[in-house]
Amino acid sequence: MSHPLLEKHRDTLDSALNAIATRGYWTPFPEMPSPKLYGETAPDDGKRAFESHLGKPFELEQPGQAGWLGKEASPYGAALGVSYPVCEPKALIAAGTEAMKGWQAIGAAGRTGVCLEILARLNAQSFEIAHAVMMTTGQGWMMAFQAGGPHAQDRGLEAVAYAWREQSFVPAESNWEKPQGKNPPLAMKKHYQIVGRGVGLVIGCGTFPTWNTYPGLFAALATGNAVIVKPHSNAILPAAITVRTIRAVLAENGLSPDLVTLCVAPQRAATQALATHPAVKSIDFTGSNVFGQWLIDNCRQAQVYAELAGVNNIVIDSTDAYKAMLGNLAFTLSLYSGQMCTTSQAIFVPAGGIDTDDGHKSYDEVCADLAKSVERFLAKPEVAHAVLGAIQSADTAERIDIANGGELGRVVLASQRLDNPDFPAATVRTPVLLACDAGDEKAYMEERFGPISFIVKVADTAAAIALSERVVSTHGALTVGLYSTRQDVIDAMTEATWRSKVALSINLTSGVFVNQSAAFSDYHGTGGNPAANAAYSDSAFVANRFRVVQRRYHV
Amino acid sequence: MSHPLLEKHRDTLDSALNAIATRGYWTPFPEMPSPKLYGETAPDDGKRAFESHLGKPFELEQPGQAGWLGKEASPYGAALGVSYPVCEPKALIAAGTEAMKGWQAIGAAGRTGVCLEILARLNAQSFEIAHAVMMTTGQGWMMAFQAGGPHAQDRGLEAVAYAWREQSFVPAESNWEKPQGKNPPLAMKKHYQIVGRGVGLVIGCGTFPTWNTYPGLFAALATGNAVIVKPHSNAILPAAITVRTIRAVLAENGLSPDLVTLCVAPQRAATQALATHPAVKSIDFTGSNVFGQWLIDNCRQAQVYAELAGVNNIVIDSTDAYKAMLGNLAFTLSLYSGQMCTTSQAIFVPAGGIDTDDGHKSYDEVCADLAKSVERFLAKPEVAHAVLGAIQSADTAERIDIANGGELGRVVLASQRLDNPDFPAATVRTPVLLACDAGDEKAYMEERFGPISFIVKVADTAAAIALSERVVSTHGALTVGLYSTRQDVIDAMTEATWRSKVALSINLTSGVFVNQSAAFSDYHGTGGNPAANAAYSDSAFVANRFRVVQRRYHV
Repeated sequence: MSHPLLEKHRDTLDSALNAIATRGYWTPFPEMPSPKLYGETAPDDGKRAFESHLGKPFELEQPGQAGWLGKEASPYGAALGVSYPVCEPKALIAAGTEAMKGWQAIGAAGRTGVCLEILARLNAQSFEIAHAVMMTTGQGWMMAFQAGGPHAQDRGLEAVAYAWREQSFVPAESNWEKPQGKNPPLAMKKHYQIVGRGVGLVIGCGTFPTWNTYPGLFAALATGNAVIVKPHSNAILPAAITVRTIRAVLAENGLSPDLVTLCVAPQRAATQALATHPAVKSIDFTGSNVFGQWLIDNCRQAQVYAELAGVNNIVIDSTDAYKAMLGNLAFTLSLYSGQMCTTSQAIFVPAGGIDTDDGHKSYDEVCADLAKSVERFLAKPEVAHAVLGAIQSADTAERIDIANGGELGRVVLASQRLDNPDFPAATVRTPVLLACDAGDEKAYMEERFGPISFIVKVADTAAAIALSERVVSTHGALTVGLYSTRQDVIDAMTEATWRSKVALSINLTSGVFVNQSAAFSDYHGTGGNPAANAAYSDSAFVANRFRVVQRRYHV
Repeated sequence: MSHPLLEKHRDTLDSALNAIATRGYWTPFPEMPSPKLYGETAPDDGKRAFESHLGKPFELEQPGQAGWLGKEASPYGAALGVSYPVCEPKALIAAGTEAMKGWQAIGAAGRTGVCLEILARLNAQSFEIAHAVMMTTGQGWMMAFQAGGPHAQDRGLEAVAYAWREQSFVPAESNWEKPQGKNPPLAMKKHYQIVGRGVGLVIGCGTFPTWNTYPGLFAALATGNAVIVKPHSNAILPAAITVRTIRAVLAENGLSPDLVTLCVAPQRAATQALATHPAVKSIDFTGSNVFGQWLIDNCRQAQVYAELAGVNNIVIDSTDAYKAMLGNLAFTLSLYSGQMCTTSQAIFVPAGGIDTDDGHKSYDEVCADLAKSVERFLAKPEVAHAVLGAIQSADTAERIDIANGGELGRVVLASQRLDNPDFPAATVRTPVLLACDAGDEKAYMEERFGPISFIVKVADTAAAIALSERVVSTHGALTVGLYSTRQDVIDAMTEATWRSKVALSINLTSGVFVNQSAAFSDYHGTGGNPAANAAYSDSAFVANRFRVVQRRYHV
């Protein structure tokens, strides 16, 4: 059984399947916002499409509509003025459940084809979505385009590829013939039907409204489930554009658009009621530990795939490229003002300092040099604004102020306020670097989301590795890094990450950064430490989102 | 990377991989207890091996041994007199965790090879294990051999095949080269390490101590985890023999035998402490809803794969093979005195009766004819004893007495006590059949484990299908059946099972029975209704038992 849309996108699917098997570099979605790649008019068309949403109600024609809501305030300073339909959650659940019948009936091939078509359409909207992501999250333009557009589409496609691979293993039917010695065999015909578990709820975050939403959205959708997307209250527009496109593709293909809906909830209580509804069978969540743990504790009817807080960290033992290391770290700490779930928060440096190609550096020298490196990197305002973007939430700004105050550690580099000439009302802050001792666990051993990092003085490299392992095991992490010229140190750190189950980047000095993960190649999260109970993507991320129901009879 | 044991068993693995992909009939483990297949001396050797365990301590040389325990009383009437080491759970956890290092190091190929060797060795012990299963569970000899030996080994092999398939998708390393226009590409080397989650706890049941234990045991083991087997207190011996063989194969291959241990716990509190230990990362459980739900609610640090109670049911609409249908049902209700998790408990029959090839039959006639069919099937004592076996627990015997008393419904066929001349002290009971109305939900809508079935009078076929769906959705079921000559009824029942997520057997009239599921072909459970949150076996049963930890660096 195939489907016209599967055939249309067959090459993309085959390449994606090859990519997840070999995990080399691959993408069908160009990451450069170039008219050559996306079409001469794409940049202007995308900008206009984005602007056309502003100050208006965003129509979705969903069931159970009871009002309008939307108060997104851009971190760049402008109110977007878009309002979104508020729909009765029960109506969305009922319509989604009903829509699953047709979605089940077209089979894995049909579902995969439709998902691939949706992704191609979203890719064509990359400029529009990039503007929506930039203005709701405070990301710089380039990151908003890449992470919000093609990289998010990559992660969606990756989930579709995993979902297809697992579903394609289930044969539609079998002929079972059991020999009976000299008697005729026992013969049965068996049929195997893939059925989705039910409604999937995907709860987005305020910083990466597409990148962190597409994996769960497409994993649940491709495996036969209805999906309700509940975006962060300040980053609705990228999700709304996505949902509208999905609904259009569904309708064009004779499927109920109500399979995928947007849920804008006036209060957290409404989200909680939705999340605990018996028909909701999976929840994908990115966000705070408090709400994430609430979901895990209370939504026992659902599989919960959660990405929560963590304390990403780096061990510096030694390096043969001191300047390049500092430059790499400066970029990592500055990118999107450290508002990535993968940004390093704690940098462990031996009390006795480190050996480098530029001579031995004391702990204090490392602190000072990293501070200088960040300052130098952000010295040009146009670079600073492009990299830093704006601070997404008032809570983050407040955390920066607290860190600047020196309560959490000695201020090695104070956060500065910058004025963005293009967006005078934007909240722009440079990173703050703090120095503290390993014993000051209260300071550095909880997530302080934003551009706040600690250079932690640790007895020696062995202690730093042990501390890194303990931090990951108890508080979680999505990324750890290591700088060392010694193989025994690299081996010890590698084994520590096997125990604590976290991805390790070793000696990053050029154009790859510890806070970046590439779809099809890098697993985002391992699912094995407290920062996340699932990874983007692996078999476990998709395999339990569908069930197989068989029937059999004699023939 | 391969391993000598993987190469030794390569054909078996390849055939198993083909079997789970095509789901036709296949097994490497002959189900007939024949000297021709197992060796001329195998039956006697197996019997002697079993007898050599009786009345003695069962040495396992496990760490933390603090005493001996074992009070297995055979349902056939004899005390086995075997005692087993009682070991400190913490010592077993520590030793298992330590042993995981070497187990991780040999990789998926090594682990798979060792698991295949273990299964081959267990197969050679089928007679010994069959006696142990028979005497601890009360199963008849043939079932004890088949379900306790080759069929259990099939289910173990099936889990190993799934585990291998999923792990084999993870490349050991990749070369990631991202083009940079006219500049040289960004190039990284990445390594992907498969790591087990931690210690797997496998909690066995009293009726199928190998068949229900091997899937979780081998799924956890093959994916890189240590395993602690906690058998039911009355069915320790089959697990102990299994664990001893596993430990021997591990030691022969230079691996720590403490990777797999037996935990005989004096009280439930000890099992609870073990199950909630932070190092225990997966729990496979077969048993009661009470303890299963306790595990799910309290062991939040672990993935819990649970098979619990259910209300299996059959809808009878019509048949063109009335006698064969009754004969098939008589066998199903009698086999192992209905002490299978797959035995039908509720049979829904329209109030207006059913059309058959032997004319229309009223509801009362169906009741009477099924009763007669069971009586006739069990008329010969040698057949009755071979099929019924003995009652495994006093609770089951008590439930039979209550059903016989007529409190739960009109007694259509009373359970009889039989004397087994070979085992005078055995508790042997024939099935009890009760008639009741659909409204008597309190009677039939909870699991009454044992040979207790209800013929439930339902308004019509449509109501019967709706009732079946509701029972499965709310109380769970591992099996449902349907008898109908009408395609529209078959279609309606099929769709009902898609919604309630339960396996359907249609018009079984010959040598296949609704309570039997064949490894590699039939999924045991769907994981989608309250009777079980997992299936034997599918990708979801193995994919989340390991995690992938990556590391990357510039090249």
